[in-house]
Order: sequence, then structure tokens, then C-alpha cells
Amino acid sequence: MARQLVECVPNFSEGRRTEIIEGIVELFRGRKGCGLLDHRADRDHNRLVVSLAGAPDPLQDALIEAARFALEHINMEEHQGAHPRIGAVDVIPFVPLQNITMETCVFLAREFGKRYHQETGIPVYYYEEAALKPDRRDLEVIRKGQFEGLKTEISHPERRPDVGEPRLHPTAGATVIGARKFLVAFNVNLGTRDVNVARKIAGAVRRSSGGLRDVKGIGLALEERGLVQVSLNIVDHERNPLYRVLELIRMEARRWGVPVVETEVYGMVPATAMLDSLAYYMQTAGFSPDQVLELRLLQALSEQEE
Amino acid sequence: MARQLVECVPNFSEGRRTEIIEGIVELFRGRKGCGLLDHRADRDHNRLVVSLAGAPDPLQDALIEAARFALEHINMEEHQGAHPRIGAVDVIPFVPLQNITMETCVFLAREFGKRYHQETGIPVYYYEEAALKPDRRDLEVIRKGQFEGLKTEISHPERRPDVGEPRLHPTAGATVIGARKFLVAFNVNLGTRDVNVARKIAGAVRRSSGGLRDVKGIGLALEERGLVQVSLNIVDHERNPLYRVLELIRMEARRWGVPVVETEVYGMVPATAMLDSLAYYMQTAGFSPDQVLELRLLQALSEQEE
Repeated sequence: MARQLVECVPNFSEGRRTEIIEGIVELFRGRKGCGLLDHRADRDHNRLVVSLAGAPDPLQDALIEAARFALEHINMEEHQGAHPRIGAVDVIPFVPLQNITMETCVFLAREFGKRYHQETGIPVYYYEEAALKPDRRDLEVIRKGQFEGLKTEISHPERRPDVGEPRLHPTAGATVIGARKFLVAFNVNLGTRDVNVARKIAGAVRRSSGGLRDVKGIGLALEERGLVQVSLNIVDHERNPLYRVLELIRMEARRWGVPVVETEVYGMVPATAMLDSLAYYMQTAGFSPDQVLELRLLQALSEQEE
Repeated sequence: MARQLVECVPNFSEGRRTEIIEGIVELFRGRKGCGLLDHRADRDHNRLVVSLAGAPDPLQDALIEAARFALEHINMEEHQGAHPRIGAVDVIPFVPLQNITMETCVFLAREFGKRYHQETGIPVYYYEEAALKPDRRDLEVIRKGQFEGLKTEISHPERRPDVGEPRLHPTAGATVIGARKFLVAFNVNLGTRDVNVARKIAGAVRRSSGGLRDVKGIGLALEERGLVQVSLNIVDHERNPLYRVLELIRMEARRWGVPVVETEVYGMVPATAMLDSLAYYMQTAGFSPDQVLELRLLQALSEQEE
């Protein structure tokens, strides 16, 4: 059987203290069967996003070690940051990459959730494809009120965790674990200090308030830079390509006389997401990813491996 | 020593007869140490462009076999097409890809040129980095007057081939062999039947008439499609990125009230050429090719190989 390959993108609530960020990342380096693809810490979000790819078993062992480290060093009672969060290890999604189905990733996420709770004592919610209740497919529903609000609301029957007792871990909160498609994190920074502009534009493009079906988003202030940000997750980039999201934001921003200063593709992105958007801007007809030298070489190398 | 990898992009003067195209391409398939990356036949150009990558020795053996086949089946006395050409095998460039310098590729091209002439009787010109005379760096200088004009002019001292007697092969003409950087072939199709518009725009963007330093180009009619084409070679895409070339063409086309209908990236292209242009259109800040999942995987696979 060909090697199963899963991507996993744990989000930790620490984007400022270098020694904690490095401590977490170091645990993912040089492991057998599990590669560190990328990591990005953001001061304003106060959040660390790590991208891993590997076989299911070594991936899970690495995650448990990193969670133990986070548990020891991150205190949610002291955490402040622009990005919504409920836990020191906030979210752990599993993403099918190669030779593995979404169904297997759902099974993997649920089994891992049980082990995770056993080894850390942190309550777990299942989301997206791994959700046990339809409304918990949506991360924002689970994260409503954030760490501070969930502290009391967790005892309400509708907010009870899927694994563990209905109380937050005192310092590490709760963790959301699930399975989903490849998510593209895409931020658009706008040349204004007025966070309402970012919020209005986020409201215009995201599904929850009437925008594009596969886009989630919020408006944030980037205080240190004197900008505001439309911070987006594109949960299906084939149906909602990057260019369409960006052009919609540019169009809305013109209504406020606000320029797009720059955009950020945050973390990993599949080649097709970039090439599909380039095809729009450059009007390329009949372009195939096979024409990209490196993609063709990767294919040739993979074929030799089999 | 790490494996040397060279790209080679032989151009054959046949883009219409399927059996000849397939006959050539078949010779490059499933060879040990030399992979077929891509091939594109164009009816209007009446030309076949093949992209190969491999180690120098198996690459050269494959080229000799394909040249023998072309020699047998292509008659330049009967060839017509929109693209300039002087031979059945028109151009053979060697391009350094991995663990090989430009100097080694120049040596390779010159040695191959001698063997090629010995085995086929076709006279050879050296161009670009492998040129023996400064004015022969430029392919267009060598190809001036095309097959028909060169037939008589080849006896002039300044047009004498670098290898072989000063007379064209009666059916296969001559071949230009050399070493160069990775070349991006980029066509822009315009919504008019007036070939003068394409010629004027080609003149505005190419170096030879005052345009961008690393751009070569001509204007062509695409009779069958009722369009015209600005057909370009970008010989240094790092200095002259695709977006800049395209935007310059869009700007010139507006002056004629002519729309850009579509563009074509012809043959292989390095990932950075596409990503650099996307960064312009999407204003991506701090984006690294390492964020592209497949490029990161390719890097991981290459490291495991070492």
C-alpha cells in the first residue's frame, strides 16, 4: 500500500515569547516519519501556526509532546491577542493529503481526541468533518465567547465538550480537534486605522453574513503597524479561489476609499490555489500544473518511489 | 557527487503531421536517465517544442536518435509555418538545472555540436552562451532570412556555420545548438485580425527595438483562430518578470483598442516565474516558495535522496 500522508496544522496560543515558540517548534524538527513544513508566529494574533506532514502515528506522537509543552508554558488567564481562541492548544485539524480519505481522517481525529484528553486532561470539541453535532462543524460556534466566556458557559448542556468533563482546564482551556479540507489562510491588510472598515469588509465576503460560501473571516486591528486586517480562512479554495476573494475585497475597499496595502498567504498553500489565481490575472489559457518544472519533477520522483 | 541535471528543449519543424510528432516524442519516452517533461505542437507555428530533463549522457543519445528521425521525415523545402526556422531540427539549447554550471553546459553544447554534425551531416551554429562569435549569441542573427535565405547566404564568410561545410543540408537545413538560462516562452493573443498591431506591440516590448532587455518577440497572425499573437521569449524571467511583460502589452494594446483575449505559457516554466508574477497581482508580502506544499515536499524528497 502506498504511504499515507496527512497534513496537520496545530494552532498554539503563543506568538510573542520566542523561547516558547522555539520550544514548541523544536519538538517537531528532525522527527522520523513526520516533517515540519512551516511555522508562523504572529505578534498581533499572539498565535503560532505549525504545518506538519507525515504518517498518522508519528504525527500523533509529536502532537502529544507539543501539547504537553504548551500545557506547561502557556497560561490562558494571561493570554491576550487579536485572534479568537479557547485554549493553549487551540485547534488541531487533520487534512488528507495522499492515499488517505476524509473518512479515515475523521476516524483519526476522533481517536486522537480521546488519547489527547487522557494524556493532558484538556477537554476536547470535535469540529468540521469530525463534528458529532451539526452545529459544531463550525469552529466559530465552538469558540463563541472565547476562553473567558466559555469558562462559565461550558456547564450549559449545549456547550458541553465532546470528550471530558464540562469544565475548562484552568490554564490550558479546551482544544478543538477535527478533520477538514486543505484550508488557505489569507489576510488582506488595509491602509487605515479604522477597524470598522475591516469588519464591514469581512462581513461582506464571509458566508456567515451573506458572502462567499467557503470563506470565513473577521476584521482586526494591527495596532503595531497602524493598519487593519481582513483575516480570512478559505475552506474550499477550488470553489472560492483566492483571486475572487481578493477582488471582492478590493471592490469593497474602494467604497471606503481605503487602499489594499498588502496581502499575506499564511502558512502552507497547495500549488493549484496559486496557479488558479494566476490564470485569472494573466488570462492563461490551457495552462497545466504539469508545466511547472518542479511539479513535474515531483511527479517523476514520486513515480520512481512506487 | 550529486546528480547533474540538465534541461534540453529541442525544437523540431513539424507541428501538423501527428504521426511525425508522435514518432519524435516516442523516442524520448521511458528512457533511463532522461525524462520527457513536456511537448507541445503548434499548427500555426508548424513546430514541435520538446522539454527534456536528465543527465548529460543519456540526454545526448536521445537527441541523436530524434534528430535522425527528423532528418528522415521532415523536408524543409516543403515546410511552411509562422515561426522563423532554418532546419528540421531548428534549435537545441542546454539549460543548467541542478548541480551543473553554465560553463559545463557550454562545454556540453560544443562537444554535442561536433558529434551531431558527424552523425547527421547537418551544419551547426553555436548560440547564446555557447556562441564562438559575439553576434551569434543572438538566435535571430543566425536565423536571418530563414531556411530559404540562408541557402544562398551560407557561403558568405560572416554566415559560415561553426561546424561543417558552408552549405545547408538539402532537406534538413542547419541546426542551432547552445547553452542558455531557463527561457520562458510566453504568447499573448489579441482580439484582432490585424497582424500589424501584434508586430507594433512586439516591437514595443522587445529589446531589439528599444523594449525590455531580456525579451525577444515577434508579431504573428493566427489565421485559423482569427487572432494575432505577440509571441515572446523571456530569456531572464528574474529580471523581466512575466507580469511586467504582460502589463506592458496590455497597456500598448489599449492604444489600438484591441483586447488581450488570452495568454499562453508555452512549455515548461519554473515555479518562481509564476509565483513572482502572482505576488505582483495579489500584492503578497513575504511569500516564500517554501509555503507551496508541493515545493516543500520536493525539497524534503531531495534531501532524503542525498
